[in-house]
Amino acid sequence: MPKTEHWQWYAEEFAPTERHEHAVEELLAAGHSRFQQYAILRTPVFGKMLVLDGDTQSSQGDERIYHETLVHPALAALEQPHEVLILGGGEGATLREVLRHPGVERCTMVDIDGEVVELCKRLLPEWGAGAWDDPRARVIIGDALRFLHEDHDRYDAIISDLTEPLPDSPSWPLFNGAVFADVKARLRDGGVYVLQASTAAFHNMALHVKMARTLRAYFAHVRSYFAHVPAFDTAWAFLACSDAVDAGALDGERIARYVGRLRGENYFYDDETHRRIFSLPLYLRRALAEKGEVFS
Amino acid sequence: MPKTEHWQWYAEEFAPTERHEHAVEELLAAGHSRFQQYAILRTPVFGKMLVLDGDTQSSQGDERIYHETLVHPALAALEQPHEVLILGGGEGATLREVLRHPGVERCTMVDIDGEVVELCKRLLPEWGAGAWDDPRARVIIGDALRFLHEDHDRYDAIISDLTEPLPDSPSWPLFNGAVFADVKARLRDGGVYVLQASTAAFHNMALHVKMARTLRAYFAHVRSYFAHVPAFDTAWAFLACSDAVDAGALDGERIARYVGRLRGENYFYDDETHRRIFSLPLYLRRALAEKGEVFS
Amino acid sequence: MPKTEHWQWYAEEFAPTERHEHAVEELLAAGHSRFQQYAILRTPVFGKMLVLDGDTQSSQGDERIYHETLVHPALAALEQPHEVLILGGGEGATLREVLRHPGVERCTMVDIDGEVVELCKRLLPEWGAGAWDDPRARVIIGDALRFLHEDHDRYDAIISDLTEPLPDSPSWPLFNGAVFADVKARLRDGGVYVLQASTAAFHNMALHVKMARTLRAYFAHVRSYFAHVPAFDTAWAFLACSDAVDAGALDGERIARYVGRLRGENYFYDDETHRRIFSLPLYLRRALAEKGEVFS
Amino acid sequence: MPKTEHWQWYAEEFAPTERHEHAVEELLAAGHSRFQQYAILRTPVFGKMLVLDGDTQSSQGDERIYHETLVHPALAALEQPHEVLILGGGEGATLREVLRHPGVERCTMVDIDGEVVELCKRLLPEWGAGAWDDPRARVIIGDALRFLHEDHDRYDAIISDLTEPLPDSPSWPLFNGAVFADVKARLRDGGVYVLQASTAAFHNMALHVKMARTLRAYFAHVRSYFAHVPAFDTAWAFLACSDAVDAGALDGERIARYVGRLRGENYFYDDETHRRIFSLPLYLRRALAEKGEVFS
Repeated sequence: MPKTEHWQWYAEEFAPTERHEHAVEELLAAGHSRFQQYAILRTPVFGKMLVLDGDTQSSQGDERIYHETLVHPALAALEQPHEVLILGGGEGATLREVLRHPGVERCTMVDIDGEVVELCKRLLPEWGAGAWDDPRARVIIGDALRFLHEDHDRYDAIISDLTEPLPDSPSWPLFNGAVFADVKARLRDGGVYVLQASTAAFHNMALHVKMARTLRAYFAHVRSYFAHVPAFDTAWAFLACSDAVDAGALDGERIARYVGRLRGENYFYDDETHRRIFSLPLYLRRALAEKGEVFS
Repeated sequence: MPKTEHWQWYAEEFAPTERHEHAVEELLAAGHSRFQQYAILRTPVFGKMLVLDGDTQSSQGDERIYHETLVHPALAALEQPHEVLILGGGEGATLREVLRHPGVERCTMVDIDGEVVELCKRLLPEWGAGAWDDPRARVIIGDALRFLHEDHDRYDAIISDLTEPLPDSPSWPLFNGAVFADVKARLRDGGVYVLQASTAAFHNMALHVKMARTLRAYFAHVRSYFAHVPAFDTAWAFLACSDAVDAGALDGERIARYVGRLRGENYFYDDETHRRIFSLPLYLRRALAEKGEVFS
Repeated sequence: MPKTEHWQWYAEEFAPTERHEHAVEELLAAGHSRFQQYAILRTPVFGKMLVLDGDTQSSQGDERIYHETLVHPALAALEQPHEVLILGGGEGATLREVLRHPGVERCTMVDIDGEVVELCKRLLPEWGAGAWDDPRARVIIGDALRFLHEDHDRYDAIISDLTEPLPDSPSWPLFNGAVFADVKARLRDGGVYVLQASTAAFHNMALHVKMARTLRAYFAHVRSYFAHVPAFDTAWAFLACSDAVDAGALDGERIARYVGRLRGENYFYDDETHRRIFSLPLYLRRALAEKGEVFS
Repeated sequence: MPKTEHWQWYAEEFAPTERHEHAVEELLAAGHSRFQQYAILRTPVFGKMLVLDGDTQSSQGDERIYHETLVHPALAALEQPHEVLILGGGEGATLREVLRHPGVERCTMVDIDGEVVELCKRLLPEWGAGAWDDPRARVIIGDALRFLHEDHDRYDAIISDLTEPLPDSPSWPLFNGAVFADVKARLRDGGVYVLQASTAAFHNMALHVKMARTLRAYFAHVRSYFAHVPAFDTAWAFLACSDAVDAGALDGERIARYVGRLRGENYFYDDETHRRIFSLPLYLRRALAEKGEVFS
């Protein structure tokens, strides 16, 4: 029989009728932690990829698109971010992006899955890029919800890099009014809460819209924005929330100055990219304007 | 054996190692025309889809994203489009979008594949939405290249909705200096040439960049822009070319006025969307600024 | 993007974790009849295939393996088959094999799905090969269960070519003691009842064993036999049941004489093949000898 | 997005248009040895599987079907096997089956790939089942071709468990007249040479037939036989060659006595199974009787 060139595949299902298969060059790790199923693999097109519970979390090829988009609009919106809190963010790339800001004095990251964090440190060192050893980094392995309850510090920015609040997921209990009240209580005046917030593609935006709708009851400014992340196969959305500042209304010069202060070079984000990701297509604005269900 | 719920699948390969499978609810047509292999099928997520030579051309769910993005920036950039020429565009949706403009007096469409055009009229009537019967439509089944040579009319806008200029494709002979000279000869002063121009995703932007680089030798203004089209699984790019007008520099009010004049409602495009699609991410601007190969 | 050579696939799932995909050259028909979902397609390796509810029913390349195995051991076991009844058998190939016997005076076939029968006549004429027009053929579109109740004729052989008795399937009500009693009542003395009876592969033989075990309460001789049918991706099993004759014990000369009387040439079955298919591997004989569940 | 239940798949291609995907529960090892690409993985239906160059070599669920069929007809055909030689056979299961025979005094196994042998010992201990440590086992890591040239011993049975002689494969140089002469020179009078010999399915039997045809010039008795091996997705064929004995003509009592002497219990093979696997279907006998190409 003919030799099968690619025998190993990673299949991601976006729906029972949509299945994207990536040939795997190498499976670097796979198993179950206490909390989730994980895999670290390498594909020809995307390089190394982290997969949790069958969902792509980030790829070497485009993780900077995701992580710059998650972190920088929120920090750019602040006069001066000193203290930052990350919920989740196990790969270490969110931490890396925060610590590229020289004004940040401490970045606390709370991730529940110590086993996945250790795997990422070892097998995905490009993601952390040294941030794990930055003296300003405080990495706590623990439950984000409990941390929010018990912690008494306050933060200029809280960045939620958790998985989606689907009914079965560990993130489900982290998406409700009680938690938002906890988040707000941990934010300094003028602080910003930003979260990855599902997809913005035409056929799959209901969860994002519901998240946005829900958060409007808690913050004066709730801004949707999104970028196409090829490894996710879709448009990925975020929400920037604050009582003080509208991240979507920042002017270009301010963003250029902000980006200029960062250590190293951006790949994706700057003032023009900011304009792109905060300018929403008509169909999404219409959906966001509709009344409907909220998380309780 | 257990009943297989979805037995019929459409697999699109983006690379030998990347394969996206869509379950097919119904195959409405499939075969070979004189020029290409075609299929019209229906999937649960995207609705009806037109597939040519194994590549998704457009889907019911998001064809408006593609076609509004192809047509309206070019027309918005003109003071008053009277005469428009479409190269390719067999589905009829490019024609539909052009004819939504009340000032257009005639829209000529030249597509080589009469069999596919007839199938689209019959099986994808939502795409044409009556445009085929508009007295301003002039549909010519023939070779676009020969038409450009032999025609003596001049157009305010020429819209190229051809497949990608890959070495094997029927579009290959349509992408070179001689053709650009023909296109320019058919443009009125102040006219705009717009073309769909491959993808802008980080791993697959070389062809787009080469197309942009090539066209800069022929037009004073060559603007890249792109939108995420879910059915294409990626960010789809376009080029707006003109000696007179920079489509990327149009102000929002002008676009809003332009959109206000169109018959019917837009789904995707307006002034905010225009800002989005013409604001390019850093990595793409860097790639576009590099020197490199051009089409001869 | 590269042209996808094979865009259309038929995926058959044998388990949620086992999926066999066949590239489709042409889909000749697909739809829903009153009773089932059907497709007739062509693949490069198997030629035309009939697919019902996502399960391969037969392929042009190897349907003779299946149909010769279903029909000839039963008829060879009879002194002289005059009257034969087929339950199901919509493709017409079971009818064809029966009518190849010159002694058969009438073959009655009762299939519930007239729409599928018509499709097979039109698109799979190689299966019937003229048998539909044989004056000895009596084709009744109707419910096999009701036919068994209401009919008063008796048959030398009853051949069940129904789909598997899975809880959700239309064949489920046809596999129980009441039906076996009806079948026996329709058999002449010395008659044989043969049925396709699921798979005999090591990982998937429980249903076959349960069917065999059940029938032993109704017939003196119940013989399992099986052949590998490539289009089914597995070993396909049958049961030959009779109070008078043990089909597994026929001697080679008798079979050779039987085959010699048939019109046309066999592809698969003769005395040596008979020895093959009735000689069971050890693991299957052990499973058949175990006590266990029966159909009620 | 919904959680993908099975994210990891092993795809085996039997043709560019036939693709069988198995969900992988665990990948135990994967990499490249000096000679081939290897993977050891576990699937829900087949248990552990060894995959070399993208081809399934054996599975926990049915390797006994393959290995009993490879070994026992040859040994049963001998009066008394004392010395046995295995070419290839890296998993250790061929060795295990040979050493189940109490009369075997020494079994020499020559496999080129020491790395794969070590992996099989460690990760597939069920295959060897202690045979590696049997004092009668002599395992040589080296080139089978060179061994046949340089060795001066003679064997009662030589069992070839090499991969198929396809033009690109490492087995290609092992399938020609010079090698058969070497094999014969190493066989004792009355000895038997048996080899796995590609597939016997209707659509894919040309290589087997060519192998059989070739060997008939070297041995007085060349017997094709085959069994359905579910993990191979097809009917797998073998050739038993000898100048002294026709393995296909052994009588049942002799085989029963042979099997009775083996240590432990058989799963698949005994006298009835022998009758099955050596009784060939008509289409295969016809193909074997045709004149045609041979290996030079």
